[in-house]
Amino acid sequence: MTDQLNIALIGSKFMGRAHSNAWLNVGRFFDVARNPVMHTVAGRNEVELREFAERWGWANTTTDWRTAVADADVDLIDIATPNHVHAEQAIAALEAGKHVVCEKPLAGTLADAEAMVAAAAASSAKTFVWYNYRRVPAVALAHRIVASGGLGRIYHARACYLQSWGGPDTPLVWRFQGDIAGSGAHGDLNAHIIDAVRFVTGEEIVSVDGAIEHTFITERALAESTGGEIAGAGAGSGAATGTSTVDDAVMFLGRLSGGGLASFEASRLATGYHNANRFEIHGERGALRFDFERMNELGFYDNEDGATAGWRTIDVTRGGDGHPYADAWWPDSHGLGYEHGFVNQAADIVAMLAGKEPLVPMPDFADALNTQRVLDAAIVSAREHRPVDLSR
Amino acid sequence: MTDQLNIALIGSKFMGRAHSNAWLNVGRFFDVARNPVMHTVAGRNEVELREFAERWGWANTTTDWRTAVADADVDLIDIATPNHVHAEQAIAALEAGKHVVCEKPLAGTLADAEAMVAAAAASSAKTFVWYNYRRVPAVALAHRIVASGGLGRIYHARACYLQSWGGPDTPLVWRFQGDIAGSGAHGDLNAHIIDAVRFVTGEEIVSVDGAIEHTFITERALAESTGGEIAGAGAGSGAATGTSTVDDAVMFLGRLSGGGLASFEASRLATGYHNANRFEIHGERGALRFDFERMNELGFYDNEDGATAGWRTIDVTRGGDGHPYADAWWPDSHGLGYEHGFVNQAADIVAMLAGKEPLVPMPDFADALNTQRVLDAAIVSAREHRPVDLSR
Amino acid sequence: MTDQLNIALIGSKFMGRAHSNAWLNVGRFFDVARNPVMHTVAGRNEVELREFAERWGWANTTTDWRTAVADADVDLIDIATPNHVHAEQAIAALEAGKHVVCEKPLAGTLADAEAMVAAAAASSAKTFVWYNYRRVPAVALAHRIVASGGLGRIYHARACYLQSWGGPDTPLVWRFQGDIAGSGAHGDLNAHIIDAVRFVTGEEIVSVDGAIEHTFITERALAESTGGEIAGAGAGSGAATGTSTVDDAVMFLGRLSGGGLASFEASRLATGYHNANRFEIHGERGALRFDFERMNELGFYDNEDGATAGWRTIDVTRGGDGHPYADAWWPDSHGLGYEHGFVNQAADIVAMLAGKEPLVPMPDFADALNTQRVLDAAIVSAREHRPVDLSR
Amino acid sequence: MTDQLNIALIGSKFMGRAHSNAWLNVGRFFDVARNPVMHTVAGRNEVELREFAERWGWANTTTDWRTAVADADVDLIDIATPNHVHAEQAIAALEAGKHVVCEKPLAGTLADAEAMVAAAAASSAKTFVWYNYRRVPAVALAHRIVASGGLGRIYHARACYLQSWGGPDTPLVWRFQGDIAGSGAHGDLNAHIIDAVRFVTGEEIVSVDGAIEHTFITERALAESTGGEIAGAGAGSGAATGTSTVDDAVMFLGRLSGGGLASFEASRLATGYHNANRFEIHGERGALRFDFERMNELGFYDNEDGATAGWRTIDVTRGGDGHPYADAWWPDSHGLGYEHGFVNQAADIVAMLAGKEPLVPMPDFADALNTQRVLDAAIVSAREHRPVDLSR
Repeated sequence: MTDQLNIALIGSKFMGRAHSNAWLNVGRFFDVARNPVMHTVAGRNEVELREFAERWGWANTTTDWRTAVADADVDLIDIATPNHVHAEQAIAALEAGKHVVCEKPLAGTLADAEAMVAAAAASSAKTFVWYNYRRVPAVALAHRIVASGGLGRIYHARACYLQSWGGPDTPLVWRFQGDIAGSGAHGDLNAHIIDAVRFVTGEEIVSVDGAIEHTFITERALAESTGGEIAGAGAGSGAATGTSTVDDAVMFLGRLSGGGLASFEASRLATGYHNANRFEIHGERGALRFDFERMNELGFYDNEDGATAGWRTIDVTRGGDGHPYADAWWPDSHGLGYEHGFVNQAADIVAMLAGKEPLVPMPDFADALNTQRVLDAAIVSAREHRPVDLSR
Repeated sequence: MTDQLNIALIGSKFMGRAHSNAWLNVGRFFDVARNPVMHTVAGRNEVELREFAERWGWANTTTDWRTAVADADVDLIDIATPNHVHAEQAIAALEAGKHVVCEKPLAGTLADAEAMVAAAAASSAKTFVWYNYRRVPAVALAHRIVASGGLGRIYHARACYLQSWGGPDTPLVWRFQGDIAGSGAHGDLNAHIIDAVRFVTGEEIVSVDGAIEHTFITERALAESTGGEIAGAGAGSGAATGTSTVDDAVMFLGRLSGGGLASFEASRLATGYHNANRFEIHGERGALRFDFERMNELGFYDNEDGATAGWRTIDVTRGGDGHPYADAWWPDSHGLGYEHGFVNQAADIVAMLAGKEPLVPMPDFADALNTQRVLDAAIVSAREHRPVDLSR
Repeated sequence: MTDQLNIALIGSKFMGRAHSNAWLNVGRFFDVARNPVMHTVAGRNEVELREFAERWGWANTTTDWRTAVADADVDLIDIATPNHVHAEQAIAALEAGKHVVCEKPLAGTLADAEAMVAAAAASSAKTFVWYNYRRVPAVALAHRIVASGGLGRIYHARACYLQSWGGPDTPLVWRFQGDIAGSGAHGDLNAHIIDAVRFVTGEEIVSVDGAIEHTFITERALAESTGGEIAGAGAGSGAATGTSTVDDAVMFLGRLSGGGLASFEASRLATGYHNANRFEIHGERGALRFDFERMNELGFYDNEDGATAGWRTIDVTRGGDGHPYADAWWPDSHGLGYEHGFVNQAADIVAMLAGKEPLVPMPDFADALNTQRVLDAAIVSAREHRPVDLSR
Repeated sequence: MTDQLNIALIGSKFMGRAHSNAWLNVGRFFDVARNPVMHTVAGRNEVELREFAERWGWANTTTDWRTAVADADVDLIDIATPNHVHAEQAIAALEAGKHVVCEKPLAGTLADAEAMVAAAAASSAKTFVWYNYRRVPAVALAHRIVASGGLGRIYHARACYLQSWGGPDTPLVWRFQGDIAGSGAHGDLNAHIIDAVRFVTGEEIVSVDGAIEHTFITERALAESTGGEIAGAGAGSGAATGTSTVDDAVMFLGRLSGGGLASFEASRLATGYHNANRFEIHGERGALRFDFERMNELGFYDNEDGATAGWRTIDVTRGGDGHPYADAWWPDSHGLGYEHGFVNQAADIVAMLAGKEPLVPMPDFADALNTQRVLDAAIVSAREHRPVDLSR
């Protein structure tokens, strides 16, 4: 008989919805060693929260997240709030002895992230970070190919995360407010691709050698609700526009611990792309490429293929061929979607909390701190016009 | 306050699972006018059935589907069984005054299908058929483009449904047994693309002008369980192999009611393709193409684009651009997967049972009979080496 | 020192130009065993012919092709005229002891083609047919992969040749006049893909099991010059429109000598495609696909690739990897264009006339007759609504 | 009657061959206002040179390029030698009153390039630079789309030129010798994409904000011939290996004069890519993308397309749609290859020397100096770890 795993979720917007779906469905598709129970959801707006809880099947609600953290029945705190409150919530949860799974990036600032890692180190609880793209099957397969030597020495990693919703007509929602969001495209998007390059190559970024941080649109119309998911304040003023205090795009160049080169670019103004989270990795024996806009496909080039060498478009949906997570879902080429990465991660989290191994490495707070350090170094490099060494 | 809609599902294999997921999730993502309740699931194997019910949240189980049909609380019978039992179950359900949604193809034989349509005509209940690909957003958008005149006069429709799991090593599962499955690739796969061409073009197939029905692999190893999902019988013999009594591939040529030409091909031996459900449609003003292996994309060629004319790869995931069903799910380019088509159809079924319109036309039994007639005509043409006129 | 090879070309329109370019450039890029000399060009319009000869470097001109055929200095007659005159010219050339290379299809009628093969058999001269796509490097590589067993038993061949220049606004040029062109899309386009399937699979088409021949646009505006390249007649009438006497599209289904199935479709009204000469071939061990609109790429799926199996997009431009004809041209991925297939074929023709082997099999008249028989059978099947057996 | 244009070519290796082909074919496909005559070719090795001249049809040869420059009959000097000799040859030619077309990059050093521009300014002759990719029709169309306002304000340009022939097994050919080549991937490849971004956007790169210059493989086997095309010297030593003195990869970040951001990356070790000369440009109204590995295609995203917006794959081969240079070649979708860009440029050079306008802007020495300045700034930035301002 399976153990229960009582979960409390903090946050009920986009990520709250993605996490709820994961907890709801994980037990339908995976054979879980513990039974995830949707125990409590915490948020600020009581009316909205109740509707949310009813829709998704959360048993309880609270407008004070500390209540959930203090609840003896709760095993796991799931943090789906804006970046600037991650640290406070995560540390409180760890101090209460709860396991914690936190949205990415780990925190709004490097100092916050370091405090979270310290709290994790001081606790016997387990920590996890929702770098959900690791569990897109194509990305997990990329990791496996590199880990098994399929690329050999790595020369290049080239990663972009390109969206285009941040044009001049987009109002000043919380994601454009630095005090809430911490940063713009950088923390939102570069965080994912830094993690992806680290995860797939198995290497660290040891220096940032040059960077540009840029805001194309500085003045934006005030949004109807300028508040964030939990934060709030709101504009309330009569002013028609406000100032964006985050980057629209950040690009940087760096070096990998194995001697290769890497580049990263995040933008909210890359017309034509809506969610182009993509990377290309070139090694001595082969190469890989991925674009989330075709999330069920992984590109692989095997230098050993001779006259028939070509980019292989691998449809990473084939359980019979051992593709990661495919067995849990549908027959071959019955593609997966965005939310499946979260469900897959939920399955691995449940497995780990039952003492098992995840299918591919899971980021904990300490791991996610390395990504946070790169994020931070890129900004230092951009603002101080100098390389930043991360190899200490 | 929303009305309840009590559902009973018959069948608990691949399609039973896909339908269960649809009923479970439809209310999370869509604002439903009636609340779908997973009331009863019917199947043959009691132990498996209970496990299935627990996993998916069906409140009751029964090993006699007639019990579910007779249950006064049940509003809708969902048939997810092999083709040869559709007629008996659907007719019984209609006679009991239940609404019925039936897996495709409508039936194992044309006679069965006609009896089902007659029963539907005699009933005040509503009927639906799970031609789920109509509600893949890209296919729904294709329908809209044609309906709004984007293609003009249609010259060509070219459809294939190509899989490759039917190689010589695949054993004699129920899908290779004619008495259970009715046919092989033909009813399984051609049914979908005949429906797709009819749905997207808005035209009927008025003749089959030539056809080939072929079985490449006639002898197959006996499967461990040779029985079907509900049926059974089984081989039971001590023989190591048995004879496949269905087609592995069926191809045919036909004409559309608007004067265009059409071709169809289904195969289980098209190495390299796993679920390539695809079509191309060429009209005087433009053209469309779709391949389920890239299910979030629709290809559209607009002849009016002049020097910048080219196949547009439309990422059909953008709620803000009015893409069908996109609003219910995630932000732009956070792609959908296979099961979302079923959830989208569940949403439209619930809407229709609350007196509303579906987003795009929904096939009922009468509509699905037209697809069945084409399926039948293709086999007649292949076996009798003659054209078959369907325009009467 | 290299021998001379004196060539006389008949025809100076589209194909005359493509052949002239081939003879002009073959010696620049290939190390030729005989030196091709552009000796004489024959055509009807003296003024145009002189301009053509000057532009391309033909040493002599004649308005009577029989003069060229009779010229003792000429070694090779290159026929680039409409189909209905191929037989007369080729037979005369063979009777004069000349080698002959003829445009495809071999002839306008099966009877003509048979007469040409008889004349070739009676001559010691060599014959060649400009099925130029065999020498597109990607198609040549496809041939090699099949020949070396890369596909195993072949289940399916699926070929289309789709263009879209034949819309209602296109006037009645010679290609729409049956007495000159022999047929429409069928002889022009299906000829190429029948040859391609035969060449790549190494199998023959042994039956046509169903076919449709169709003319969408029956009345067309008269062209300024309604005459053909050499023929003439002309409309002369005062009528504004004339009747198209050829097909716009022909589709047919058939069987391969190895037991596989095949389908063919040619159209001039496939909006969105301009020169989509494409095929897909599925075997037990792998699959191939090609589309001339991306002529430097061959798709290959190797079933042995396990978890990393995927369609390989082979950039067939790599001399170092032994890609056919690549050495003669540029470094890797410095792609080739349409006319290079003709130059490659010219290189093989010159090689064969110097006693060497071509890189891949070259079609002679006897070989091309098999394609002609399939063309003919498709029309018989379409008009008589019956299968046609070609296996005798 | 057309004027003659007597051309002397210096260099007879890869580029000498590409230029010869251009001069040979330009008059066949284009209606030229002056008749290009292949007058003289200059090189070092007399035997090889004669063979080259005979093959390509150069009337005269000389082993002293100064003879050609001094020849009163010669109108145009075409420089196809390694970068370090461009300046000497071009300046001598200009001083002799000849028009000059020079291979890219303009020179091996910025000082050389400036001297060349000064010499051009002091002469009444015309100068041209072989940035051949401008005349790939897809790139020319990209230029036109931007010039006509199709992109609006430009946010991002992202360019890579990725090859993979520089692995550890490649010997120390002249391209790895800094004194001959000037640089490695940087001058060879980044030169092209800097020019492409400048050409397509119509903007200048006004700063380099960060850069990395890297050599992955420092020791390479000595090549059989270590000499360059004209240079020579050679290693001569008995050592088995030598030191590469050029970069294998250079990446840099910069800003555009219109306020946008740009990134550039060149590598000879990008496994999987052989000639991936590509760019993506994002503006407020639309976006463009190009990859030379699919040279006949241009990607265009038009933000105005609403629900049917998608990346358009424009097959840039359609003369009837006004695609640049298409009329000169073949019917639609009869694709072009690598060398056609050179022929197209030759056509524009001839036109300009007859007083006409080129189809799209042609780079002269002054224009190419701007590209050279960016090349130089990137190296300064990489070596001195600082931004470089180019906006003066």
